[in-house]
Amino acid sequence: MNYCSNCGQPVAFGYIPEEDTERFHCPSCGAIHYQNPKLVVGCLPRRDDKVLLCKRAIEPCKGLWTLPAGFMEMGESVEQGAIRETLEEASAKVEIVHLFSIYSLPKIGQIYMIFLANLINMDFHPNKETSEVRLFSKSAIPFKQIAFTAIRYSLEKYALGSLEQLPHLGSSLKF
Amino acid sequence: MNYCSNCGQPVAFGYIPEEDTERFHCPSCGAIHYQNPKLVVGCLPRRDDKVLLCKRAIEPCKGLWTLPAGFMEMGESVEQGAIRETLEEASAKVEIVHLFSIYSLPKIGQIYMIFLANLINMDFHPNKETSEVRLFSKSAIPFKQIAFTAIRYSLEKYALGSLEQLPHLGSSLKF
Repeated sequence: MNYCSNCGQPVAFGYIPEEDTERFHCPSCGAIHYQNPKLVVGCLPRRDDKVLLCKRAIEPCKGLWTLPAGFMEMGESVEQGAIRETLEEASAKVEIVHLFSIYSLPKIGQIYMIFLANLINMDFHPNKETSEVRLFSKSAIPFKQIAFTAIRYSLEKYALGSLEQLPHLGSSLKF
Repeated sequence: MNYCSNCGQPVAFGYIPEEDTERFHCPSCGAIHYQNPKLVVGCLPRRDDKVLLCKRAIEPCKGLWTLPAGFMEMGESVEQGAIRETLEEASAKVEIVHLFSIYSLPKIGQIYMIFLANLINMDFHPNKETSEVRLFSKSAIPFKQIAFTAIRYSLEKYALGSLEQLPHLGSSLKF
């Protein structure tokens, strides 16, 4: 962040007394520019005890497998975002069962929210972000070729067979 | 958003082919300025079957009651954010029990994530954002003086006595 999105003048980073913390702010117009974590929403789509994974056709992590998930957009609920991403990345239609996991990545300011979902039909296929879409039994999940830490966390919980009602809460923080 | 935070030139809003949607972007340097929903994290703090509420000392909704909650910051997990907000707004120390509710507000791009929590002690008190902090039995919750839709949703579910394991998923969308 170099310039103020409100007035176009250079921004500064420093302590704001009213906020009691450091923020990007504009010495010219006084605007405070908050930085907030972003939500990544997606699904763990199931069919006959198999899980749908997508092979990434784009960077980052091109060639590795992931669950369909992506940044939540304005104007949608978390469930709608998860369903949209599954349609966009795997052309797969799902119905949501329940929230499966929430995984925080504090260092990069991302929160993954993954919903357990049922595939409505078998009419799924790759698109521009995805080179391959396949169903995997739990024992066949390619754990050495998984794209993201938060996705690996969800798949590990799923592979362990734990379908308890409470969502799994994980974090990349080391305590 | 008027100016590019990268190069300081005026931004435009329009269709981006690679994104297949409309975004704020900079015709000068090419930067795309994504807008994403923000996470509000907080707690539903309990003690002896009573719930802790805060009376707001600041706008919006000054004078109305709410659960301790606020915008998640960079560098923390969702649980850490909820505990921090509870300390900041009510000076109350809690331990988290489990995720209680997620409520989407698509029109304003906010997602509330509320955790059921236990008060560790009774040493809570108001601070600069809060004029009063009190424990309420379920039947005494002041439902006509609650500050925010998402907080009302959580308190209604709590008052109904439903402490099922699955978090409540709500939205301001009308279907």
